Amino acid sequence: MSRIKLGMVGGGNDAFIGAVHRIASRIDDRFELVAGALSSTPEKSQASGEALGLPRIYDDFKQMAQREARRKDGIDAVSIVTPNHVHYSAAREFLKRGIHVICDKPLTSTLADAKKLVKAAEDSDALFILTHNYTGYPMVRQAREMIANGDIGAIRVVQVEYPQDWLTVEQDFKQAEWRTDPARSGAGGSTGDIGTHAFNLACFVTGLEVESLAADLTAFVPGRQVDDNGHVMLRFEGGAKGMLWCSQVAPGNENALRIRVYGDKGGLEWAQEDPNYLWHTPFGEPKRLITRNGAGAGEAAARVSRIPPGHPEGYLEGFANIYTESADAIMAVKAGQGVPAEVLYPTVHDGLKGVQFVSACVKSSARNATWVKLDH
Amino acid sequence: MSRIKLGMVGGGNDAFIGAVHRIASRIDDRFELVAGALSSTPEKSQASGEALGLPRIYDDFKQMAQREARRKDGIDAVSIVTPNHVHYSAAREFLKRGIHVICDKPLTSTLADAKKLVKAAEDSDALFILTHNYTGYPMVRQAREMIANGDIGAIRVVQVEYPQDWLTVEQDFKQAEWRTDPARSGAGGSTGDIGTHAFNLACFVTGLEVESLAADLTAFVPGRQVDDNGHVMLRFEGGAKGMLWCSQVAPGNENALRIRVYGDKGGLEWAQEDPNYLWHTPFGEPKRLITRNGAGAGEAAARVSRIPPGHPEGYLEGFANIYTESADAIMAVKAGQGVPAEVLYPTVHDGLKGVQFVSACVKSSARNATWVKLDH
Amino acid sequence: MSRIKLGMVGGGNDAFIGAVHRIASRIDDRFELVAGALSSTPEKSQASGEALGLPRIYDDFKQMAQREARRKDGIDAVSIVTPNHVHYSAAREFLKRGIHVICDKPLTSTLADAKKLVKAAEDSDALFILTHNYTGYPMVRQAREMIANGDIGAIRVVQVEYPQDWLTVEQDFKQAEWRTDPARSGAGGSTGDIGTHAFNLACFVTGLEVESLAADLTAFVPGRQVDDNGHVMLRFEGGAKGMLWCSQVAPGNENALRIRVYGDKGGLEWAQEDPNYLWHTPFGEPKRLITRNGAGAGEAAARVSRIPPGHPEGYLEGFANIYTESADAIMAVKAGQGVPAEVLYPTVHDGLKGVQFVSACVKSSARNATWVKLDH
Amino acid sequence: MSRIKLGMVGGGNDAFIGAVHRIASRIDDRFELVAGALSSTPEKSQASGEALGLPRIYDDFKQMAQREARRKDGIDAVSIVTPNHVHYSAAREFLKRGIHVICDKPLTSTLADAKKLVKAAEDSDALFILTHNYTGYPMVRQAREMIANGDIGAIRVVQVEYPQDWLTVEQDFKQAEWRTDPARSGAGGSTGDIGTHAFNLACFVTGLEVESLAADLTAFVPGRQVDDNGHVMLRFEGGAKGMLWCSQVAPGNENALRIRVYGDKGGLEWAQEDPNYLWHTPFGEPKRLITRNGAGAGEAAARVSRIPPGHPEGYLEGFANIYTESADAIMAVKAGQGVPAEVLYPTVHDGLKGVQFVSACVKSSARNATWVKLDH
Repeated sequence: MSRIKLGMVGGGNDAFIGAVHRIASRIDDRFELVAGALSSTPEKSQASGEALGLPRIYDDFKQMAQREARRKDGIDAVSIVTPNHVHYSAAREFLKRGIHVICDKPLTSTLADAKKLVKAAEDSDALFILTHNYTGYPMVRQAREMIANGDIGAIRVVQVEYPQDWLTVEQDFKQAEWRTDPARSGAGGSTGDIGTHAFNLACFVTGLEVESLAADLTAFVPGRQVDDNGHVMLRFEGGAKGMLWCSQVAPGNENALRIRVYGDKGGLEWAQEDPNYLWHTPFGEPKRLITRNGAGAGEAAARVSRIPPGHPEGYLEGFANIYTESADAIMAVKAGQGVPAEVLYPTVHDGLKGVQFVSACVKSSARNATWVKLDH
Repeated sequence: MSRIKLGMVGGGNDAFIGAVHRIASRIDDRFELVAGALSSTPEKSQASGEALGLPRIYDDFKQMAQREARRKDGIDAVSIVTPNHVHYSAAREFLKRGIHVICDKPLTSTLADAKKLVKAAEDSDALFILTHNYTGYPMVRQAREMIANGDIGAIRVVQVEYPQDWLTVEQDFKQAEWRTDPARSGAGGSTGDIGTHAFNLACFVTGLEVESLAADLTAFVPGRQVDDNGHVMLRFEGGAKGMLWCSQVAPGNENALRIRVYGDKGGLEWAQEDPNYLWHTPFGEPKRLITRNGAGAGEAAARVSRIPPGHPEGYLEGFANIYTESADAIMAVKAGQGVPAEVLYPTVHDGLKGVQFVSACVKSSARNATWVKLDH
Repeated sequence: MSRIKLGMVGGGNDAFIGAVHRIASRIDDRFELVAGALSSTPEKSQASGEALGLPRIYDDFKQMAQREARRKDGIDAVSIVTPNHVHYSAAREFLKRGIHVICDKPLTSTLADAKKLVKAAEDSDALFILTHNYTGYPMVRQAREMIANGDIGAIRVVQVEYPQDWLTVEQDFKQAEWRTDPARSGAGGSTGDIGTHAFNLACFVTGLEVESLAADLTAFVPGRQVDDNGHVMLRFEGGAKGMLWCSQVAPGNENALRIRVYGDKGGLEWAQEDPNYLWHTPFGEPKRLITRNGAGAGEAAARVSRIPPGHPEGYLEGFANIYTESADAIMAVKAGQGVPAEVLYPTVHDGLKGVQFVSACVKSSARNATWVKLDH
Repeated sequence: MSRIKLGMVGGGNDAFIGAVHRIASRIDDRFELVAGALSSTPEKSQASGEALGLPRIYDDFKQMAQREARRKDGIDAVSIVTPNHVHYSAAREFLKRGIHVICDKPLTSTLADAKKLVKAAEDSDALFILTHNYTGYPMVRQAREMIANGDIGAIRVVQVEYPQDWLTVEQDFKQAEWRTDPARSGAGGSTGDIGTHAFNLACFVTGLEVESLAADLTAFVPGRQVDDNGHVMLRFEGGAKGMLWCSQVAPGNENALRIRVYGDKGGLEWAQEDPNYLWHTPFGEPKRLITRNGAGAGEAAARVSRIPPGHPEGYLEGFANIYTESADAIMAVKAGQGVPAEVLYPTVHDGLKGVQFVSACVKSSARNATWVKLDH
């Protein structure tokens, strides 16, 4: 099977998420990184590209899109891993040239951009994949499959949370800096950076849509311009209720995304920091520990799992699953076929919902936590 | 040291909480149960009293209050463990005769009753102790002490939850029956039965007062007249924010009261089902496991702990601590002294706040989760 | 039901285990402590007895046995909670007068004494109960019942361990002092103090007898006269194999008794510090968490459990179960009936096996860990 | 940085460990797999090589070694991932041609082969790296560094265990088949397959050498020719003692390698299934949770860690670290320099010790668990 030729926008030296995307793209050997515009200036792009030994290094994403589109051996797909405010303009250049886009989340920094990006994706023959990477974890897939199968009955309550602690104090390094600048990050702070993951996870696992929300957002660190803590109540279509908590000021929480779903027949619990475990309680029976590739795990998890139970897969493998799903989808499109039903990845529409989530949180909070519809 | 003579109202055969109170009163050998009106009819009271071998058995609480008050060797204190709607009328009889009252929570089934009970307690020389038993756990005391000492700095976020699963389906046994009847339980279902514990714990541990709340209550089980799930956002005086979740329809949760408190210098986490552990993270340092009577535990926990670390104390010992604190307070009063500062127990005022919490939740939820002040 | 009149030998001020026995005897209201010879000198006995408000205080156990035996309202039973080397001589005085004995473990400090005590118990009409208290935990009973029911099939492997850390350094307080003195503790240090618990637990849970063992004992702390760490390999009758580790020099372990049993159909795991949980894996199925009084727990556990699941019972309740079983047995004997089959407590024969275990460990270790039969 | 050209021997279709090696070699982009003799027959080798899209496919390892050695662009290194009995003959072919060898564990199936392989490696200019992959986990490195720094003082007790359950019943698939055939696996069953990992881990983490051992090995499954459970007591040079348990018949254990080390100043605990955590207890202080790349983690762990704390790395990343260390070492050798001191990988001498461990276990067990020196 020949590898898909991949370019990258953003992700230069010291960018955590760029390195993650590169490793994720390599793990299953389906991509080959051949081109990049890795930084915001030509000089930095050149330096970062050379450090990675990239065959083709460009000054900026526009130049890359133009030239790669013209090459016979040009890239099939591009990963966009810049700060949020660049996502739309970069993605547009590739989509309009038929180059598939794999884009970091949240989709965009503004709702206006998000809607334009949806249109750009719809107008393009190319695929758009958003790396809500937590949907790639096998036991998240397992939870989704079990809920779809009715294993916990009709869903009543969804508790999702994503606390971190790295912004407990003022930080001045690069990762912190753009994430707390509304011009680059968007109006949401923790809500945009991690709340969108929690929101997406809740919808992905349950198969439910959020109808409206009431949010109380706070910037606890003095001088911070965006929220660093979000308390959100959720109402799902169909009557389920939920709570979502995201925080970057909760000491003792590194990256503690966690979801609990309760239905009228049982409950499920999953935590990102211990991702190989899924707890399932059929009501009235003992709690069961389902493990990745272990007894009780089904097809949906096995599809995206590499090694036996007890051999932990982690964040990078979950992220790699999004890339491998992307590869399957891209190869299907290349072959003129539809994307197979079992191939799952977050779409531009999921991305739009995430930006709508941030927007609704900000609006609700500004109105003293009144309920706001998601598609307000 | 001579034992305090104790009576009991309610707690007849099959009443879970009555047996708990009796064990709790015995553990530290400070009380002797000598009288009771254990059930709602004279016949049942007689039968239950005989089964326990009680020296003096009464038809009802009023008879007991009158006669015990006249005896030279009459009871010093009474435990009231009836359904909620009886608390006020029973307590009043004893308070007005100078008999100390140890009363189960929530304080009353209505806010009106709660206010009358506060007055009755204030008008009496007798003590009124409310068994918010979770405040008796040593590691809860430890958390409170650490927060008071500033170990986690200024508090920003309080996440408290109390999920159970026993009411996931319609239940017809006695415990379930009165708890889901608003006439006996009060307007709150899960909010009254367990939400008040969570609310009380949050205030006890942090030393903060809740200023207002926004609640979305739901009765998920068809036909249920009171909430079985409560989603509540909290705003504390001074600016801290919180979330409170109580549920009796969350399969896999037996009695999963849990609190997490985050300040600008660190975080604390405690879970009732594993009560001998307190997790403490000073920001920027590794998480630490403080154990009951183990390294890192302080005076406040040691005061209410009996055995060495690694020898788990449980629910009954935590409950017993409320009784032992009561005994210390009663003995101090008997000796004509003030209650020592280190003796801690929930008061009638804490009880009023709990009923205000339920009332505010019900009101807020009826108004589509708008903010309601606690002392509305 | 009238309470059993209880005396106590040992357990004066500052003796941890005496207080434990007293609380344990009170929890279920089956005993009343009325007499004591609580310390090794008449003066100390008097002081300790007065501090507890004991009705009858004696100079020593012999005086107590003689005088109580003569009283009409004399004690029915006595708790012996002295250092090990006193167990035999004290127990003998009561047994020969028909007073039931509840004795702390290990049975005696020497094998010779153990054999004499077995004879004394056999010659007496009174019962002899040894407080291997860990057999009182509900989930230990649950494990035993499941194994007896064949739930994990034929047993192959038993891993039992009991690490502590309190003797990591030289200690000079009372608890440490006599436990590290072979004249009072016996030839085994950690093997006698805690290894016997682990050994007893393994036998109790599995229903198997140890045929022989190979032990490598060490005194790591300079100057210590008895082992503070024991590594033991076990061979059970019938072919199962096991390992037993006991240590008092393992920092980070408070009282970490833990047992794991594996059969040809499944496995069970239990840990004393989290005693309300039992993990059960039927081979080829997900691991299940059985909780005290929760789904999946059976009759044997329910018999010795007081409160609902999620309300943790602890060390004192487990210890109390031994007392309550003793009360049931004593009442049956008083009524001229046999002890009911479901009433379980460790006997003098279990105690003998424990001393044989220590003796075999010491002998094996002295012979460079060659195999020694238990009844050598 | 140009990639190292890699060949592979073994690891054809359906071979779990071959796929693991390939992913591990890719994660950090330091290797490029260009040649293979992936199976035991030319036909299967061809098919497996084509399935992977390998540029150069050989009939057998000898052919591959000869032809690659002659090519200018021939492989720099080879991964040997065959059953154990082939390791020596395959490795020899590459070593004598100066091609670096990365070999799966255990080193060989016999002690004689192991000694010959040591000689072959010593006679070669090429490097020999053994994939005791668990030494690649960051928190294992952290533990090693802390012990070397004296953080837990002088080591007294080492408890290491490696239980699995997949061989609880007779299995007939390929992975099980050769592992239970002494001709291919070696005289040890569980001792060779996983006991060697546990043994290696204990030595790596503590920096200690095992002086002698006493082993009781059992084949519990009827008809099995090699041990499926090993109970081993260890004596380390310098006086520390240990226990090692390996089992493949312990239901509920997937791949539960775990090590606990206790010194006179503290303790450390690590478990492979939750590899991002290291528990550290300084004696007399609360237990601390050190996390990969989190607070309290040092340089040795950071060197081999890719992503922030809370983003779990797993088995494949730990395995990849052995490959990346190999790459660093190979590049240093290519550059005519010595291997940097911080670059750590298991050597042929570690491999010899592992085979000596198996041999000593088998010999000791045959002699009724008498002590056998490691270099017997």
